[in-house]
Amino acid sequence: MTERVVLAYSGGLDTSVCIGWIAEETGAEVIAVAVDVGQGGEDLEVIRKRALACGAVEAEVADARDEFADGYCLPAIKANALYMDRYPLVSALSRPVIVKHLVAAAHKHGASTVAHGCTGKGNDQVRFEAGISSLAPDLKCIAPVRDYAMTRDKAIAFAEANNLPIATTKKSPYSIDQNVFGRAVETGFLEDIWNGPIEDVYEYTQNPAEPREADEVVITFKQGVPVAIDGKPVTVLQAIEQLNQRAGAQGIGRLDMVEDRLVGIKSREIYEAPGAIALITAHQELENVTVERELARYKKGVDQRWGELVYDGLWFSPLKRALEGFVEEANEHVSGDVRMTLHGGRAVVTGRRSEESLYDFNLATYDTGDTFDQSLSKGFIEIFGLSSKIAARRSLRA
Amino acid sequence: MTERVVLAYSGGLDTSVCIGWIAEETGAEVIAVAVDVGQGGEDLEVIRKRALACGAVEAEVADARDEFADGYCLPAIKANALYMDRYPLVSALSRPVIVKHLVAAAHKHGASTVAHGCTGKGNDQVRFEAGISSLAPDLKCIAPVRDYAMTRDKAIAFAEANNLPIATTKKSPYSIDQNVFGRAVETGFLEDIWNGPIEDVYEYTQNPAEPREADEVVITFKQGVPVAIDGKPVTVLQAIEQLNQRAGAQGIGRLDMVEDRLVGIKSREIYEAPGAIALITAHQELENVTVERELARYKKGVDQRWGELVYDGLWFSPLKRALEGFVEEANEHVSGDVRMTLHGGRAVVTGRRSEESLYDFNLATYDTGDTFDQSLSKGFIEIFGLSSKIAARRSLRA
Amino acid sequence: MTERVVLAYSGGLDTSVCIGWIAEETGAEVIAVAVDVGQGGEDLEVIRKRALACGAVEAEVADARDEFADGYCLPAIKANALYMDRYPLVSALSRPVIVKHLVAAAHKHGASTVAHGCTGKGNDQVRFEAGISSLAPDLKCIAPVRDYAMTRDKAIAFAEANNLPIATTKKSPYSIDQNVFGRAVETGFLEDIWNGPIEDVYEYTQNPAEPREADEVVITFKQGVPVAIDGKPVTVLQAIEQLNQRAGAQGIGRLDMVEDRLVGIKSREIYEAPGAIALITAHQELENVTVERELARYKKGVDQRWGELVYDGLWFSPLKRALEGFVEEANEHVSGDVRMTLHGGRAVVTGRRSEESLYDFNLATYDTGDTFDQSLSKGFIEIFGLSSKIAARRSLRA
Amino acid sequence: MTERVVLAYSGGLDTSVCIGWIAEETGAEVIAVAVDVGQGGEDLEVIRKRALACGAVEAEVADARDEFADGYCLPAIKANALYMDRYPLVSALSRPVIVKHLVAAAHKHGASTVAHGCTGKGNDQVRFEAGISSLAPDLKCIAPVRDYAMTRDKAIAFAEANNLPIATTKKSPYSIDQNVFGRAVETGFLEDIWNGPIEDVYEYTQNPAEPREADEVVITFKQGVPVAIDGKPVTVLQAIEQLNQRAGAQGIGRLDMVEDRLVGIKSREIYEAPGAIALITAHQELENVTVERELARYKKGVDQRWGELVYDGLWFSPLKRALEGFVEEANEHVSGDVRMTLHGGRAVVTGRRSEESLYDFNLATYDTGDTFDQSLSKGFIEIFGLSSKIAARRSLRA
Repeated sequence: MTERVVLAYSGGLDTSVCIGWIAEETGAEVIAVAVDVGQGGEDLEVIRKRALACGAVEAEVADARDEFADGYCLPAIKANALYMDRYPLVSALSRPVIVKHLVAAAHKHGASTVAHGCTGKGNDQVRFEAGISSLAPDLKCIAPVRDYAMTRDKAIAFAEANNLPIATTKKSPYSIDQNVFGRAVETGFLEDIWNGPIEDVYEYTQNPAEPREADEVVITFKQGVPVAIDGKPVTVLQAIEQLNQRAGAQGIGRLDMVEDRLVGIKSREIYEAPGAIALITAHQELENVTVERELARYKKGVDQRWGELVYDGLWFSPLKRALEGFVEEANEHVSGDVRMTLHGGRAVVTGRRSEESLYDFNLATYDTGDTFDQSLSKGFIEIFGLSSKIAARRSLRA
Repeated sequence: MTERVVLAYSGGLDTSVCIGWIAEETGAEVIAVAVDVGQGGEDLEVIRKRALACGAVEAEVADARDEFADGYCLPAIKANALYMDRYPLVSALSRPVIVKHLVAAAHKHGASTVAHGCTGKGNDQVRFEAGISSLAPDLKCIAPVRDYAMTRDKAIAFAEANNLPIATTKKSPYSIDQNVFGRAVETGFLEDIWNGPIEDVYEYTQNPAEPREADEVVITFKQGVPVAIDGKPVTVLQAIEQLNQRAGAQGIGRLDMVEDRLVGIKSREIYEAPGAIALITAHQELENVTVERELARYKKGVDQRWGELVYDGLWFSPLKRALEGFVEEANEHVSGDVRMTLHGGRAVVTGRRSEESLYDFNLATYDTGDTFDQSLSKGFIEIFGLSSKIAARRSLRA
Repeated sequence: MTERVVLAYSGGLDTSVCIGWIAEETGAEVIAVAVDVGQGGEDLEVIRKRALACGAVEAEVADARDEFADGYCLPAIKANALYMDRYPLVSALSRPVIVKHLVAAAHKHGASTVAHGCTGKGNDQVRFEAGISSLAPDLKCIAPVRDYAMTRDKAIAFAEANNLPIATTKKSPYSIDQNVFGRAVETGFLEDIWNGPIEDVYEYTQNPAEPREADEVVITFKQGVPVAIDGKPVTVLQAIEQLNQRAGAQGIGRLDMVEDRLVGIKSREIYEAPGAIALITAHQELENVTVERELARYKKGVDQRWGELVYDGLWFSPLKRALEGFVEEANEHVSGDVRMTLHGGRAVVTGRRSEESLYDFNLATYDTGDTFDQSLSKGFIEIFGLSSKIAARRSLRA
Repeated sequence: MTERVVLAYSGGLDTSVCIGWIAEETGAEVIAVAVDVGQGGEDLEVIRKRALACGAVEAEVADARDEFADGYCLPAIKANALYMDRYPLVSALSRPVIVKHLVAAAHKHGASTVAHGCTGKGNDQVRFEAGISSLAPDLKCIAPVRDYAMTRDKAIAFAEANNLPIATTKKSPYSIDQNVFGRAVETGFLEDIWNGPIEDVYEYTQNPAEPREADEVVITFKQGVPVAIDGKPVTVLQAIEQLNQRAGAQGIGRLDMVEDRLVGIKSREIYEAPGAIALITAHQELENVTVERELARYKKGVDQRWGELVYDGLWFSPLKRALEGFVEEANEHVSGDVRMTLHGGRAVVTGRRSEESLYDFNLATYDTGDTFDQSLSKGFIEIFGLSSKIAARRSLRA
């Protein structure tokens, strides 16, 4: 039987060319799989037909938007996942859900190999291949751009030579990856890290510097899950989409950073993630209200490691699963409302209320009703500081 | 000889009353010590004279602004110190420098005891007393508000009865602590954490929502130390002061959070720290450019612990010293320029350049000049993901 | 109605005197509660009758040995809990199970207060009181030794004056706490930390220096739980008891250390925990075989923090619960057999086998059958070390 | 000019063959470099001459034993470095010092390439190559066994065909790496991890099960450095050597473990490190006496990460340097004497004394002289446990 290769298909030039390229390089039949994670753009059916027109023996498309939001974005919200304290893992989160669909298709169609369109110097190749080898250790992986030297110019030539039904106009200056959780942009002039981004690179967000009316939103969480916006029930997907609109309209969620890639180099990245940033901001403050101090302190380290693992392509690793055992437990009481003002590029929490609150007015207040017994403090301070004090005494006697 | 008590003196009603109150409670002579950490307000000499007029047998004042900036704010910048990811430790940083002056005065004047004006439910009592016991384990500590039940009302009555030269007008609704690194505000109506702050609580910052021209600033760091602003050399104190002005004018550095106090309760806090936030934002991004990935990842945990220790009043603890051994080493190459746009409440980095940069254009670029050998990636990915893959294989065989 | 106090009762002199002492100090009725956690010694019924004879209005006894082993020792085994890398938390583990029984008795008998016999400078007072306040925040706690100055001499005088049915012979030189998981000994001459322990202090273990035949044991774990010894099914309690016998007979599990108490001081402690040390040693090595590397590395930090929390009396804290979410997940595959030689004070693993093993002979072997593709290593090494290499290049250009 | 390759030369069959093999494969001249890190065996001059006889154009030998002890073993002692809590990094420590000599020779002789005899599935290839690329990013690395398929059988055939002056007898069943800090053994029958080691694999240690007299030793440390044994000054090298003898004679320091290699596989390893284990055991206990609690707790994580980095071949990485900033600071007060009994495979601390001790008899004692104020504990416990208590209250109201 002819070998079969499942290809992660986007509908764009590169992966359209991959179909024939892989067939030529390997002699295999190519099955195209396109997964909708909220990247917008063309209709899935259009993409499916193009794959077939480009030579795929089979083409599958899947609307994975809710699956992506519930199974991938939501854990990131619960872990306040911000790589390097800033980046909400937009692309890193979408790879594993795509991987799941690729592996399912490989099993269904008896494919031995999975192909993707990534280069050999980014993170996504790792996310695809480490993911695939964790779900299906016996599948092989190929990346035509990396393994068969399929450059952009050669791809255009191939498309034209083979009359592929895909535009081969000059490449946009931007290299973009986007999904419902955000959008990543790389481009030549930003490779000089002294250059600032221009307004033109942004699509999910309006210019925060332009004057406009502020927006106020109340987000309701239940055990770490956003369940309502302004009192109206939402799915996680709807929460992200609505906040992409509302926070995006206020210029919220733009990021410009130099980032440590897994492959050892630093790169300059521009991101937009209005909904993600708004949700994580609200979730963090609700944790401040509902999570006990020592748990909150330790969770920061767990959250950081969770984000690094996901960034590094280890979504399906044993450590990530165990960290989620912690994160789930920590979100048990993260329920309540957070009110935020969205304006001028900032999502600012102005109020929080929760049945699960650990904020105790009577302990906190300095006014009438204070129930805190201040006489306890002296003993606390003395013993809390005792080990340092004993160490200090040593220094003095030296 | 009569016992002597050194009192941390602010010049305000509470500590002015403390002078006589302590004398009455203990029979001791009171020595007032006022330390200028950039809190503004009255002239030090005016404060000194008031202390004497209120009954102090001695009064000392010290301009510790540069000492505070260099020895206390700077380490916080190097550690990107943000308690709970947000609060730049404004009050927590000032306590140890005040403690140093109190202890020096106690030694100079032969005092056996140090007194401070804190209540028994906040963090500052711990910072004062743990600090004092670390520098001078044999000094005793007293806090008249906590230990001798010196309430506000009783203080006013005492001041009036004793004709103290200090205003006893109705207390401002705000409880404020401020220094050059920032300003903390607590107030009754914000003890309902659903209430948002009003414009009235802010002093260091303008309303970020008001339209104005953006400001652009270039901050130069050398080994983690801010040494120039827009090319003009500055001391650390000047860097903070100038950025308080410029970032404050743009509404930058306002914080509104529910915070975990060391004494086990959650409290609502409003902060303003325009200079601190601008400096830490710039420092973080320069680290992104100049610090190697694994060091950067580990440093986040070290920075967090450093901030927690300082927040918890353990400035003089052995662990803090050892963490600084790490932080100093990590800042060795944090030199270069960061350009930021200050506007609308946001300090946004738009450019960075550094002789010490680890960003390598030739490795990062996708254009001509790319020196990254993509063929290495396949082996990397396979072995990087191998332990997860082996674990995955086990799950499949189960 | 008369106030009621539930007393943690051991049957010994101190707590027997406490019954009357508390009654005198507080006017309350005292209910004695004795919990068997495997400390051995007198029959529970004897203890119950003595409590009544000493004046308790009610006396309850509970055999909590299985509950202790399953709910308290087992989590410690799963977390390889060794405080300061050495001490298996013997006393720290028993306090929370006793607390549960005390609180249940307080609710049953309508008591407002719980009393315990601890001093004011150890860890156990914290474990009792923090535990009680977490299970029943409204119960008060008292400790006659600490709060009512009930010294040893006064206790003896009280017992004699009141004809209590308890021996008041001169105190043993040893202060001992023991349960099925181990035994702790403090004594005057060991407070000089240059003095070595003498054979006389040990009870659970034979002298390891004496010549004897080695013993070989195979322990079977299922998901981290010891389920069989030498192929015979055991409960956790039986596993500990049998290994106390067999490892104790070989002198295993003696510890002599200077330890950091929660109250800020260092103390000298002697422990014996033959079963605990044997079980943890076996569990650790089975983890080496069955737990993926990154999970194993991270788990060390989680295990350490779990142990510190339990040592510090925070058994019922939210952080401990969340850490256990991680630890449970990490133990999912810790199943298999570990063979150990018990001899001369050492429990030495000599073999391990597991259906869940991640050790892959074909990847590990250097002989025929090797399936490891060495050609992948070059790419791995180059990219794995790239960020350090780039940093090194910087140093060279400086 | 002919290319030159510097070869890490041991004098054994494999690297003797490498000389000619590399010359054939690359056409380069080979310079042999042998470094004495205390591995014993042949005289360096004998080794030097053999290299030349095998075709090296130059041969250099260096006695790096003190350099190794002072610069590599000592930091490991200060960091209590035990990979996976057990393995004192024997081989991992020697690679960077050998790398230093290789790089120096490459510079001296104008070589473009460094070669080593490692396989492609172990850790040592990474340690060599990551080390070299950090010290000299422009040097290339080759490993004939891995890169040119130089198998054992081919090596023997090559040696015989070329009449190399080296024995080609059947390979020993053991693959051994040893230096002054310890000895590592792998062998075929131990690749079945259920098999126990036999006495035959050990060389640095006597059988611990054999009856013999105990030995008692006092080790003196100054700021973490072992400076005297039984009162006689020693260098670090002498300390290790003397304890190798004395602890080795008592069977101390044998390890048998399943270990996580950097390349993602688990392997079975047998180690002997009598001196290393004795020194680290003593150093740990002296830390217990002289290091403040919070510093000690945090140091465990730092120590673990230091050991992992060194195991993983990242000796020259920025993170390791920064961790050492912490470790050095933490060792500042680790001075004093530790008395140990060496016997029956165990190094047991029986006494410690130190001018820098934080153990305070008067605080610790329960006898006359007690200066601990127990009345402080109540306030401490209440506030220490308050955040957990508030969280507990929430659970009760649910």
